[in-house]
Amino acid sequence: MARQPRKLARELAATTSAEAALAIFCRSAADFDDIHATACLRQVALFWPRVQKAEDALQLQELLHRLRQRAPSLDVEATVINAWSLAKLQEAQTAIPEGFQEALCSAVERRRSEFSGRHLATVLWAFAKSPAGRLDTETVEDPPINEETTDASSSIPKVEKKRKMMEAKIGVKLCETKYVVKPLLCLKPTLNLRCATDVDTESTGASSSEDGTVKGRLVEVPKKIGMRNVQLIMDEDMLNRYQAKKEACNFLLKCETWFAEYLGMKYALSLNSGGIAISLGLEAMKRVLFPDDTVEQIRVYSNAFTFNAVPSACLVAGFGKTLKLIEATSELVIDLDHLEKCIQDDLKSGKFAPGKMILVLSYMRGRVPDMHRVLAICEKYQIQLLEDSAHGYGCSFDGRKCGSFGVVSTISSQANKLVNTGEGGMVFTNNDEIQAFFIFSAGSYEELWRKHEAMSPPEEVCLKYKYTTVNKSVRMTNIQGALMHPQLAVMNDRIDQHNEMYYYLVRTTSEKLEEVCGKGASKRIEFIAQAHSLVGPVYDSLQIRILDSDCRPCAEEFSGLTGFLKELQGRKHSIAKFSDPANARNFMSWQYINAEAIHPDVLPQTRRVLANVCDLRLLCHDTEQEMAKMATDLAESFKMNFF
Amino acid sequence: MARQPRKLARELAATTSAEAALAIFCRSAADFDDIHATACLRQVALFWPRVQKAEDALQLQELLHRLRQRAPSLDVEATVINAWSLAKLQEAQTAIPEGFQEALCSAVERRRSEFSGRHLATVLWAFAKSPAGRLDTETVEDPPINEETTDASSSIPKVEKKRKMMEAKIGVKLCETKYVVKPLLCLKPTLNLRCATDVDTESTGASSSEDGTVKGRLVEVPKKIGMRNVQLIMDEDMLNRYQAKKEACNFLLKCETWFAEYLGMKYALSLNSGGIAISLGLEAMKRVLFPDDTVEQIRVYSNAFTFNAVPSACLVAGFGKTLKLIEATSELVIDLDHLEKCIQDDLKSGKFAPGKMILVLSYMRGRVPDMHRVLAICEKYQIQLLEDSAHGYGCSFDGRKCGSFGVVSTISSQANKLVNTGEGGMVFTNNDEIQAFFIFSAGSYEELWRKHEAMSPPEEVCLKYKYTTVNKSVRMTNIQGALMHPQLAVMNDRIDQHNEMYYYLVRTTSEKLEEVCGKGASKRIEFIAQAHSLVGPVYDSLQIRILDSDCRPCAEEFSGLTGFLKELQGRKHSIAKFSDPANARNFMSWQYINAEAIHPDVLPQTRRVLANVCDLRLLCHDTEQEMAKMATDLAESFKMNFF
Repeated sequence: MARQPRKLARELAATTSAEAALAIFCRSAADFDDIHATACLRQVALFWPRVQKAEDALQLQELLHRLRQRAPSLDVEATVINAWSLAKLQEAQTAIPEGFQEALCSAVERRRSEFSGRHLATVLWAFAKSPAGRLDTETVEDPPINEETTDASSSIPKVEKKRKMMEAKIGVKLCETKYVVKPLLCLKPTLNLRCATDVDTESTGASSSEDGTVKGRLVEVPKKIGMRNVQLIMDEDMLNRYQAKKEACNFLLKCETWFAEYLGMKYALSLNSGGIAISLGLEAMKRVLFPDDTVEQIRVYSNAFTFNAVPSACLVAGFGKTLKLIEATSELVIDLDHLEKCIQDDLKSGKFAPGKMILVLSYMRGRVPDMHRVLAICEKYQIQLLEDSAHGYGCSFDGRKCGSFGVVSTISSQANKLVNTGEGGMVFTNNDEIQAFFIFSAGSYEELWRKHEAMSPPEEVCLKYKYTTVNKSVRMTNIQGALMHPQLAVMNDRIDQHNEMYYYLVRTTSEKLEEVCGKGASKRIEFIAQAHSLVGPVYDSLQIRILDSDCRPCAEEFSGLTGFLKELQGRKHSIAKFSDPANARNFMSWQYINAEAIHPDVLPQTRRVLANVCDLRLLCHDTEQEMAKMATDLAESFKMNFF
Repeated sequence: MARQPRKLARELAATTSAEAALAIFCRSAADFDDIHATACLRQVALFWPRVQKAEDALQLQELLHRLRQRAPSLDVEATVINAWSLAKLQEAQTAIPEGFQEALCSAVERRRSEFSGRHLATVLWAFAKSPAGRLDTETVEDPPINEETTDASSSIPKVEKKRKMMEAKIGVKLCETKYVVKPLLCLKPTLNLRCATDVDTESTGASSSEDGTVKGRLVEVPKKIGMRNVQLIMDEDMLNRYQAKKEACNFLLKCETWFAEYLGMKYALSLNSGGIAISLGLEAMKRVLFPDDTVEQIRVYSNAFTFNAVPSACLVAGFGKTLKLIEATSELVIDLDHLEKCIQDDLKSGKFAPGKMILVLSYMRGRVPDMHRVLAICEKYQIQLLEDSAHGYGCSFDGRKCGSFGVVSTISSQANKLVNTGEGGMVFTNNDEIQAFFIFSAGSYEELWRKHEAMSPPEEVCLKYKYTTVNKSVRMTNIQGALMHPQLAVMNDRIDQHNEMYYYLVRTTSEKLEEVCGKGASKRIEFIAQAHSLVGPVYDSLQIRILDSDCRPCAEEFSGLTGFLKELQGRKHSIAKFSDPANARNFMSWQYINAEAIHPDVLPQTRRVLANVCDLRLLCHDTEQEMAKMATDLAESFKMNFF
C-alpha cells in the first residue's frame, strides 16, 4: 500500500533546505501521485530565492527535475512561482539552472489560456529581467507608450526600461507588487509567448515523445491535465458545479467564461448536450421574446440538411406544428432564396404574422452561409436568430465568430466534436432575461444562481425567473468541465491542424487521383467548397461529391457508390453517404415530424444536392502520413468502382 | 519529463526472470503511472507458475509488493491471474509468499460486483485447492449435488473432492479449462467471499490507513478505481457510450446491467439526470400505454412533498394541466386516503375516465408508504405507477426493492445521492416498448441501439421506435459510468453504514437531550419514523420534527426554530427547514404550476406536517465520533433556543 501522498507533501513542504527535501523525495518517490508531486514542486520552488551556493542550486535542480518527472507539465501556479523565482535569482545574480528558462517558456506557452491577467503579468515581468531575446510577442502590434500609465516606483533602473518596453508591446502595465492589468483579456487569443529556442521542435528523445507529437500536444497533454483536474474535484467532492466551494474547482464556470469571451457573447451556460442547448434556447426565446404568443403562432425555420437532434430540439421546445424545413444548396448550407420565399409565402397567406418567426440556423458540418444576407433577412422580416454551432465553433464570417450573430447560440462538446467531454453542450446569449431562464431551467434553485458569478444576470432579473421556471435537470457535470478546460488551451491549435491537414488532403487526393486514375480524374471528386469566400472554416470533417464522367453532379446515385464506400470502410475509414435513408442526417429518417413536412417531393433540392455526397470525420491529430494514406485509399477505391 | 510508462510496461512484460523484472522496476519506479503499474502486475503474475526456487519467489514477492504500492488495488484480471497462479503453485507444492492468499481474498471481496461468472469460477476453483477454511460462503444455501453435471475430467483426485463440495455450495460447475457457469448472476448480490482472517479489521499501520477506514473503504477505494476507469476510457477514446468498442470499457452498460438486476427489473438506461428520467418515463408511458389519448385526458397524481424536479418533470412531459398534488402524512409519505379521495372525485365528476391515470410516486427522502395499499389502489382504479426512487434506491417494502413495483421506475446519481456521478440518473422498466422508446429518445440513432446488447428489446420492437421517436439528447457520459461502477460494489455497505450511524445518532441524541436539557427533553425532538414497519430503510438523511413542551406537533412555526437552525449551521451542519417558502421542496415555491394547484389552502395538511420539520443530509462515511458531535450540537442548540 502506498503511503499517504498528502502527508508526504506536507512533510516535504515543511523542510527548510534543498538537501533535506531531496532526501525525503528520494526515499519516497514511489509514494507520490501526480497531484501531490505538483503541490511539492510549487512549495519547493519557493526555495529558489534562498539559494546562495551553487551546490544548493544543483540539489534543488535535481529535486525539481525529479518532481517534474512525476508532474508531467507544470501547473499555472507553479509556473508563476518559478517565474518569480527566476526573476529573483537574476536580481541576485545567482546561478540559474540549465534549461530552467526554456521549461518555463514552454509551460507558459502550453497553458496560456489558463493564465489570469495577474499570472501573466508576473511571468512577463520575470522575463523582462531575463537576457534579451527570450521573449517574442510575435502577433501583437506595438501600441504607443502611454506615459501617464507608467509606474515609476521600480527601483531597478536597468529592468525598468525593459519593463516599459514590454508594457508598450503588450499594452499591460506591470510592476513588482501590484499588477494593474487592463486590456489583457482581449489579448489572450493572440498573445503568443515563445522563447528564442523553440522547445517544440528542438526537444528530442523519450522524454518529449508524448508532448512533442501532434497527438501529444493536442490530445495527450490536455487529457493529462484533465485527469489531474478530475482528481482534484474528486478529492474535494465537487463533481457537481454547485458543490464547488473553491474558485479553482469550478471548471464549468471557467469554461463558460472562456467560451463566452471567445465567441464575444456576454453569457454562457453548460448543459448536458448540444440538443438540449437548442431546445432550451428556443424555450427561452418563446418565454422572453414572445410572452403573449402560443407556440402555434410562431413559425420556426430550420435546415433540411442537419443532424436529427436539431429538428428534434424544435419539437421538444413545442414547435412540432410550425417547424418548416428549408432546402440546402449544393454547398450544403441553408438556401437563403428558399428561406426568403417561404417567409414571403407565410406572410402573404397570413398564416404567421410579421415578427413571429424564429430561424434555427444549423452550421451543419461547419458550413456557413452568407451571414451578411442572413442578418439582412432577419432584419427585414423581424426574425429572431438561433445559431446551432454544434460543429461550427471556431468558424467565422467576415472576421466575426459564428455563434455571436444570434439572440441565442449553442455548441456541442459530444465526443466527435472539436472539444470532447463525452456528451455536453453550451448555450450563449447577450440577453439578461434569457440567461436567467437558462440558469433556472437547467436546474438551479434556491440561492445557487449566485454561484454563476459574472455569468449570472442582475439579481432582479434572476428573481423574476427563480420560482416561475420549470427545472428541467439538464446541467453538465463539473467532471466534464474539468476535462474540457485544458482542451480550450489547444482549441485554436486543433483548428489550425484540422485545416492544414484538410488542405493537404485535398491537394494530395487530387494528385493521387491523377496518378492512379489518369489525367483529369481529380475533377471527378469534388471537395465541396464553403459557400462564401468570407468564411473562416474549421475542417473537422470532409464532404466530397462524386461527379459523373463529364464532371457534373448527378441527382441519381451512381451504381459504383456503394462499392466505393465499402472499399473505403474496409480500409478503416468510417465514411458514409448522406442519401442513405437510415442516415440520421437524412430528413427522410425524421419520421417523428408530420409526414408531409418530410415527404421527398417537398424538398427535392436537398435530395438532389445530397446525392453522391460522402461524409467522413477527421481527427484533430491527423498527420500528413495519415492524410497521404487516405488520399491513396480514396483514389484507389475510386478507380475500383468508377472505371 | 517522465519516461513512457507504456514502453516500460512492455519492457517489463518481456522479461523472463523475476530478477530481471525487479531490476527494471527498481530503476524506473518513478516513471510508472498507476495504470501501467497494474498492467505490469498482471504480466508479472504470470511468472508465478515458473518459479521453482525460494529466492525467485522472494524476489517476485518483492516486485509484486512494489508494483502493488503503485496500483492500490488489484484489478479483476490481475486478481484472477493471481488466483490461477496460486492454484498452480499449490499443485506444484511451491512456496507461497506470505500474505498472498489474504491479499487475494481481500481483492475478490472488494470487487466482487465486477467479477464475471467466469472470473469468479476461476477464483473459486483456486481457493478450492487451498487449505481448508479459507473460503466461507456465508449467505448461500447449500443446494444438493447434481451428479449429472459433475465434471469428471479433473486429474487431481484430492482437489476433485473439494471442488465438488464447492460446486454444491455455490451452484456453479467448475473445471480447470472450461467454466460452465449457470446461475451465478442471481448469486452475485448475496455471495460473500471472505477469508478466515478478516483483513479489514486485522490490517493496521500506514499501509492500510486509507482502505481501512470507513471513508477509505466506502469512498476512497471506489474513487481510486473510478479514476483508473476514467484513465482507461480516456486512453481508448471512449468517453461516449457509443464509442465503446471493448466490452470492458462500456461502463454504462455494466452499471445498467448491475442496477437492473439489483432492483429486479428487466431493463435499465442511464440518463443525464433523475429529473429527465421521470419526464422520459412519463412520455414513454403516454406513448406506449395511452397511444390514443391526449395528455389533457390523462390525470397525473404526485406528491405535494417532494423536490421541485418531480412536478417539473410532469410539466416537461406535457402534464402541466392535469397534475394533481397529493397531501403528505405526518410521516412525510403520500397520503393514500387523500389520493383515493381525489381519484374518486375525478371519476365521479367524469373529469377523467377510469384507466386514464398515472401515479408518480416519489420516495422523497427515502420514505416509503404502505406499498401493499399503493398497489391495491393502482389495481382497483387501473392506475399506472411510476416510482421516483431518486433518494430511495436500496429501500424495500416487505422484502421487495423499491423501484421494482412500477411500470417505470427511476433513480438519481446526482452528487448528494447514495451513488455520486456529479449529475445523472437511470430509468427502469420491464416493458419492451417503453425501453425501446427510452433508448431512441435518449439519443440513439442508426444502428447504435444494438450496443445496448441485453438491455435492448427485440429488434422488431426497436425498429418500431427507431425513426419515429424524437431525439432528446439526454444520454449519460461513459465517464460517469466509469465513476459509478466501482461505487456499486460498496453500495450495500454504504447503506449499512448509513443505517448503523442513523440509529446511533437517534440513540445518542436522545441521551444528550436528557443530559443537556433535562429529563424528558428527548421527547421534544421527533426523529420521524418510516410510515410502515415493513419498510427496509436507507437513512442517508434525517428529518426531525420539533415538538412543543407537551411533546405535541405544532402547526405554527416555533419562534425558536430560526435560532436553532442558525446555531446548527454555525456549527457546520447544513440543516434547513422544509417550511421555508424558498425551499425547493416546499410546493409553494413551485410557481410554474398553475396558481390554484399550489395555493396554501389547497394542501393544508402538507403545510401542517412540514411545520417545524428540519432536514439534514448525512454522509455514507459518517462515523460514531461525528454522530456523537452532531448529537451534542443538536442537544445544545435545542437548549439554547427552546428553553
